[in-house]
Amino acid sequence: MREEELLINRLKAYKDSRIYPFHMPGHKRLQLGGIKGETARSGMDFPNPFFVDITEVEGFDNLHHAQGILKQSMEWAARVYGADRTWYLINGSTCGILASVCGCTRPGGHILMSRNCHKAAYHAAYINHLRTSYVYPQDLPGLGIQGGILPEDVEKALEEHRDIQAVFIVSPTYDGVVSDVSKIADIVHRKGIPLIVDEAHGAHFRFGKWFPDSALDMGADAVIQSVHKTLPSLTQTALLHIKGNYVNSRNIERYLSIFQSSSPSYVFMASIENSIFVMDRMQRERDSVQMKEYEAHLMDLRRRLASMKNLRLVDRDIVGMGGVWDLDVSKIVVSTRGTALSGADLSSILREKYHLEMEMCGADYVTAITTVFDSPEGLQRLGDSLEEIDADITGMPGSREDGPAVYGMRAQARCSLREAMDSPCRPVRLKESEGQISAEFVYLYPPGIPILAPGENIARNILDVIEEYIKKGLPIQGPEDESLETLRVLSGERPIC
Amino acid sequence: MREEELLINRLKAYKDSRIYPFHMPGHKRLQLGGIKGETARSGMDFPNPFFVDITEVEGFDNLHHAQGILKQSMEWAARVYGADRTWYLINGSTCGILASVCGCTRPGGHILMSRNCHKAAYHAAYINHLRTSYVYPQDLPGLGIQGGILPEDVEKALEEHRDIQAVFIVSPTYDGVVSDVSKIADIVHRKGIPLIVDEAHGAHFRFGKWFPDSALDMGADAVIQSVHKTLPSLTQTALLHIKGNYVNSRNIERYLSIFQSSSPSYVFMASIENSIFVMDRMQRERDSVQMKEYEAHLMDLRRRLASMKNLRLVDRDIVGMGGVWDLDVSKIVVSTRGTALSGADLSSILREKYHLEMEMCGADYVTAITTVFDSPEGLQRLGDSLEEIDADITGMPGSREDGPAVYGMRAQARCSLREAMDSPCRPVRLKESEGQISAEFVYLYPPGIPILAPGENIARNILDVIEEYIKKGLPIQGPEDESLETLRVLSGERPIC
Repeated sequence: MREEELLINRLKAYKDSRIYPFHMPGHKRLQLGGIKGETARSGMDFPNPFFVDITEVEGFDNLHHAQGILKQSMEWAARVYGADRTWYLINGSTCGILASVCGCTRPGGHILMSRNCHKAAYHAAYINHLRTSYVYPQDLPGLGIQGGILPEDVEKALEEHRDIQAVFIVSPTYDGVVSDVSKIADIVHRKGIPLIVDEAHGAHFRFGKWFPDSALDMGADAVIQSVHKTLPSLTQTALLHIKGNYVNSRNIERYLSIFQSSSPSYVFMASIENSIFVMDRMQRERDSVQMKEYEAHLMDLRRRLASMKNLRLVDRDIVGMGGVWDLDVSKIVVSTRGTALSGADLSSILREKYHLEMEMCGADYVTAITTVFDSPEGLQRLGDSLEEIDADITGMPGSREDGPAVYGMRAQARCSLREAMDSPCRPVRLKESEGQISAEFVYLYPPGIPILAPGENIARNILDVIEEYIKKGLPIQGPEDESLETLRVLSGERPIC
Repeated sequence: MREEELLINRLKAYKDSRIYPFHMPGHKRLQLGGIKGETARSGMDFPNPFFVDITEVEGFDNLHHAQGILKQSMEWAARVYGADRTWYLINGSTCGILASVCGCTRPGGHILMSRNCHKAAYHAAYINHLRTSYVYPQDLPGLGIQGGILPEDVEKALEEHRDIQAVFIVSPTYDGVVSDVSKIADIVHRKGIPLIVDEAHGAHFRFGKWFPDSALDMGADAVIQSVHKTLPSLTQTALLHIKGNYVNSRNIERYLSIFQSSSPSYVFMASIENSIFVMDRMQRERDSVQMKEYEAHLMDLRRRLASMKNLRLVDRDIVGMGGVWDLDVSKIVVSTRGTALSGADLSSILREKYHLEMEMCGADYVTAITTVFDSPEGLQRLGDSLEEIDADITGMPGSREDGPAVYGMRAQARCSLREAMDSPCRPVRLKESEGQISAEFVYLYPPGIPILAPGENIARNILDVIEEYIKKGLPIQGPEDESLETLRVLSGERPIC
């Protein structure tokens, strides 16, 4: 290993590059502070992390048994968010999802999950030997992005399966689509069970009048938020809030003590607290220059992008369609449907020609994350670049055909995730896998909705879709054999555990 | 929340205090670099972490599916450590313990653990529904610290329980006591099963001739090391190494993907890599001034402390006694036995009067961690302070009576950890708990060896010991009722899951 190859040196070089981040983390590597020399004023003047990296010394409390300053800090955070209780998470939303799902279900129980949930929810089902039923997000025709979860779908599933112990949904999605959490919470509570919401992309909702309502305010019982995604906190930091009487605080805390390091980082804890403090202060100062400037620049950007001729900004006109209850306008989602560009093409052009790095690209859209820590120059560059690209592609023929039909797929489970993942398996040629039980996930990423999960039947219609995607060169992930020639299936007729 | 109360501001103030760290993290908040202005030369000139905190952008690989620079970096680390494969862990040794135990056992299986193992090993047994059998560390008479694990105890347990699927031990202990891992590995391998070693306190063994052999070199199959404990890495960072054919790399990797954040911190990954790079370079430069100076200052310190009249340095003369195969001399363990001071007293005096913060104090000893990143001034201050205290207590009468007999306790399990922790329980008055099944852990911390674990029978002799400790005011932990008036026990006669 040569010194210049060290990751820290690559990261320093990357920081000095012209590449502007329209992705998480929400602090945007202090582009704002860096450009204006305002790191201190923005409250993020952290020193070399080694200087402030300590262990549980006298006076600094203990995250796993908080009784002093960390307890007070988490109680303050709970008040800011309107929660009964808030935990700082130093292993990301991942551990919040694991702990809330395991803490709200009994081993071998049954959970209703939205099919577009994070892999940690599937992992929690695996760990706690849960049976899983699913509700599917709606499709938004013509845009290629996911819609919301319909309350009536949740209601139907709960009627059909009377033994469900908890409901887990994602809202907002990566693209800012918020579901009707209030109505879903009512339905779930009528069954006397808790609603867990993965609001990883919504930690900022509380801090701006023009953001959607937060899941906690809409009646969710346990809410997980990544503070690094849209708040100015370091990557791998998150919050878990609980409220009301449908969740058992003790159970959740026990699982947090299992899934989080027993040597939690004080740099991370300081970063979590600091990010909430900075946002709360901005929101309280009615004249917060930074928040007002951000709002003005963001709205200006959205107005410009709404006028594009070929590319299409996903805008508030989708509210009310396909389960979309509200839209987080801080996400800039641009659809390429009807143009000759794919999402990957647009993302590449933005990176290579304009030095703008997006958060994500789908088959036919790109998503950019903006936060109050974006610089006006950054937002301006994004607007200029997209307008230029939009003008360039005029006249290039494209099709507005609807994309892959992942939303319509409904695979049938023949055993639980756990049974499937722990049973002996063998690779078979994909085309010969019909009728077998899958041992692997198969999904398009994005949107990351599994076409097949372990334990599910490989039906002919599902196989047809997978083969069609492969032919189209779409990004199928999951199988260990990345060439997708083979798929691992259960060896026996029945799972053996 | 007022700005000056923010954790980051408390941490900055703490950095500027005179308090010197004889605890983890091993980078010692760059005391060495700070004092000499040599942060850059020591390779730890990290900037404000926000500047280098990114997500998985183009060219920076993906920890959970490493194919580029992270894969190369982990392969390089494996070569440095002599492993077949090495993973960087951003959720501490905790996730390495969870993943290796879950990855080396089948659900509902049986594991042999050393009773002094980290709580994460108990958690792994809980998660994977394992039955647990235990080997106990030896007692070192007259010193009050733990000895090693005897190979013959492991052999006996494996003979007695033919269905054990993996063996998990801690070596070195917090106090630097190394067990005979070679012999234990031979015994374990004769049964065709893997030996997992929690070497959290031994990540530096590879980098100094005068350190003990590493567990990996002595034949262990999976080894977990905290790089923040004794290497110059940020808190919450660790390594998992595997070697040989007794462990299934795929199983372990699957569990790592479950227990680690899906947004792993690049700052942490850079810190892990950097700490190995810095140590490896020092070790390769035969004339490494820093390593030689550290050795000279440490040996000088140990010589001074070996001459104390009342306090007693735990030194290499214990090698060969009570299962002690080797001793890590970088740990400074000072026994107060036979003086009027308890471990807590000595620790307080060192903090209050001399501004030296220890890693840990036991009933009658303190432990200090030293690393190559200690400053000569820091080591000098520790020597001066302990000599002064030692001189002050001359003539103060004390007893050299042996301390609590935790090492002799052998509780009987009536059900598994899992069954006990998931069953209904109720608090009963401690004195009326005899004959019940404990729902809680009860242990003295340190040494952190459970006197009772969930599922174990509350026998008369165990209750006597607990009551004696309470009377003596020793630090009993575990029960939810911190006043220790009640203990939670299983409600039913039999666990119900």
